[in-house]
Amino acid sequence: MSGWLRILGLGPGNPAWITPETTALLAEATDVIGYAPYLARLRLRLGQIAHGSDNRVEIDRARLALAMAAAGQRVAVVSGGDPGIFAMAAAVFEALEAGPLAWRAIDIAVHPGVSAMQAAAARLGAPLGHDFCVISLSDNLKPWTILEKRLDAVAAGDFVLALYNPASKARPDRLHQAFARLRTLKARETPVAFARAIGRADESLFITTLAEADAARADMATLVLIGSSETRWIATPGGGWLYTPRTYGAGR
Amino acid sequence: MSGWLRILGLGPGNPAWITPETTALLAEATDVIGYAPYLARLRLRLGQIAHGSDNRVEIDRARLALAMAAAGQRVAVVSGGDPGIFAMAAAVFEALEAGPLAWRAIDIAVHPGVSAMQAAAARLGAPLGHDFCVISLSDNLKPWTILEKRLDAVAAGDFVLALYNPASKARPDRLHQAFARLRTLKARETPVAFARAIGRADESLFITTLAEADAARADMATLVLIGSSETRWIATPGGGWLYTPRTYGAGR
Repeated sequence: MSGWLRILGLGPGNPAWITPETTALLAEATDVIGYAPYLARLRLRLGQIAHGSDNRVEIDRARLALAMAAAGQRVAVVSGGDPGIFAMAAAVFEALEAGPLAWRAIDIAVHPGVSAMQAAAARLGAPLGHDFCVISLSDNLKPWTILEKRLDAVAAGDFVLALYNPASKARPDRLHQAFARLRTLKARETPVAFARAIGRADESLFITTLAEADAARADMATLVLIGSSETRWIATPGGGWLYTPRTYGAGR
Repeated sequence: MSGWLRILGLGPGNPAWITPETTALLAEATDVIGYAPYLARLRLRLGQIAHGSDNRVEIDRARLALAMAAAGQRVAVVSGGDPGIFAMAAAVFEALEAGPLAWRAIDIAVHPGVSAMQAAAARLGAPLGHDFCVISLSDNLKPWTILEKRLDAVAAGDFVLALYNPASKARPDRLHQAFARLRTLKARETPVAFARAIGRADESLFITTLAEADAARADMATLVLIGSSETRWIATPGGGWLYTPRTYGAGR
């Protein structure tokens, strides 16, 4: 079988964050599959076919990609950010595992990209400079009990926390519940950053404390970062920097 | 002051993973500062000055970078991977906070890159497809008690875990201790992957179980990934894929 499947990430929005590897593979593809607004960012060449879809049908998109690759097409599946972090790579492997055995012979590769938390961290300073955890709030099937267990664990371990997909139409209260839970476990003055659409023309940053953090500030384009007990603020004439030192307890 | 400081990451080794933004900023710098083997990867142009150093003097390197930028140079500080994840960005902000107030007026920016866990995850499949934590074992000042607390939290939250810097001359037993601790908390058959030098010519992958994982297999170029209870293996004719489904409990 001559087809292949490449699972790619376009980064968080700034085209200068797309790796040269990803750009080269996109040019070789016969078919490009992804959430329609991501495909709109690309300049496809004549003859390439774009298969845009809604954001809620990841598994259908993954099946279509595998079926086309099995039929001999050169297929690129694109996500925003890194395809391996809350994105299409896991959906493709779910579809592969559940699909016909013949699909397991498909030439598949995943290629890394810049994820939203990295862009947000860069703009803020270095909040991910020490141990951290990463949680998505968008999993509609994830029971609140497991989320609660994970938030408790993040607080018990005094990790920095990056929250993906903090707001969704299906579960609008999750971030509000998460802040409420963390307020019972972490200091009121813990820094909280709302990083919205970083790398796009309308990017914005808002930094506050856990005590003051308002879940209504987040939408689906927002990454929320919550500090550890070590995360610090340096005021500068131009604003300031949020960072977590490399060594635990060094600031005390 | 006309100087500036750009904090950049070269990715985990494959030059095709360096973002175009980082390549452009490197070309504009008058001075490039970093751990000598990272600088050796770059083709500097005539007139650019490379300031190579040992890996253990990050804070000296950060101070030098700030002093040169304050003196009007255009300075690029380079790390492997992403500069914000266990790399130079935090060191620069530590030096900035402790340094002369005049340094706070320096034009500083951090730029994201691909980190080692993302390259490792891509080669393996999609192990970071759901909630995960990231811990560095290299912090010589981090007491074992905090590390133990964090490993316990990772297990209690049933997170996937990425371990950076699993082996060091200063603390050779840390990974051994970490595996021993996790064996008391997680299932014996939990997948463990050793991803070494991914993106370089000598890259290698080794996948085993927590019961069988041997800390001696890791060196400073290795990223260790430990699954959650959800992380699964799909066997294929070419080997297989390790992935964590997007929804918690979906595989049961």
